Amino acid sequence: MLAWMDERALGATLTTGQTHFYSRSRRKHWHKGGTSGHVQYVESIAIDCDGDVLLIKARQMGGACHEGYRSCFFRRITSGGRIELIAEPVFDARTVYGSSRETGQASAKSDRALDSARE
Amino acid sequence: MLAWMDERALGATLTTGQTHFYSRSRRKHWHKGGTSGHVQYVESIAIDCDGDVLLIKARQMGGACHEGYRSCFFRRITSGGRIELIAEPVFDARTVYGSSRETGQASAKSDRALDSARE
Repeated sequence: MLAWMDERALGATLTTGQTHFYSRSRRKHWHKGGTSGHVQYVESIAIDCDGDVLLIKARQMGGACHEGYRSCFFRRITSGGRIELIAEPVFDARTVYGSSRETGQASAKSDRALDSARE
Repeated sequence: MLAWMDERALGATLTTGQTHFYSRSRRKHWHKGGTSGHVQYVESIAIDCDGDVLLIKARQMGGACHEGYRSCFFRRITSGGRIELIAEPVFDARTVYGSSRETGQASAKSDRALDSARE
């Protein structure tokens, strides 16, 4: 998954050992797994050469993706440009997040990378 | 490394089997390894749930990072918040890219994620 952090989210991640992010579309901080229990236990945090991207390796409880998959990257693009499914869901997203929440977030899709994973 | 693609860059990546990107700061397309020979041979391209992030697995020639490391993620953040080096350079960045180029790109750092890797 890819999500945004600010300084406070990184601080909470370092302090708790679980990932915290900042949603630009909802303008709020969120704790990955706070609602679903699908938390991420941080194993390592690498920072890139110019210091604006973090690569976090974590032990994922349940699934990272709001669509019920372990990873948000559950499809691949073939060399011919087609999109193919490459994974099976690991949980029922509707049961975990509820359909009302699904609808509620659909309006915030302009900042889409933020919504690729859920609390 | 993290870099931006647009439709044309993705098309070139699919067609050639080597990664191509789009630099937002320089407003031009670039072929990773075009200058240095440090190309990336694409092994797989996954796309995330909402279709705005690609995760590309590639066979890296030389190093991906303009600072001479195999990966741009050559430092880690400790649980105490300190930054530590976790890798050794694999090539001499000054020899490969030249010092003038180094200076030339320093002014484009406002769009920093783009400059974390070089041609």
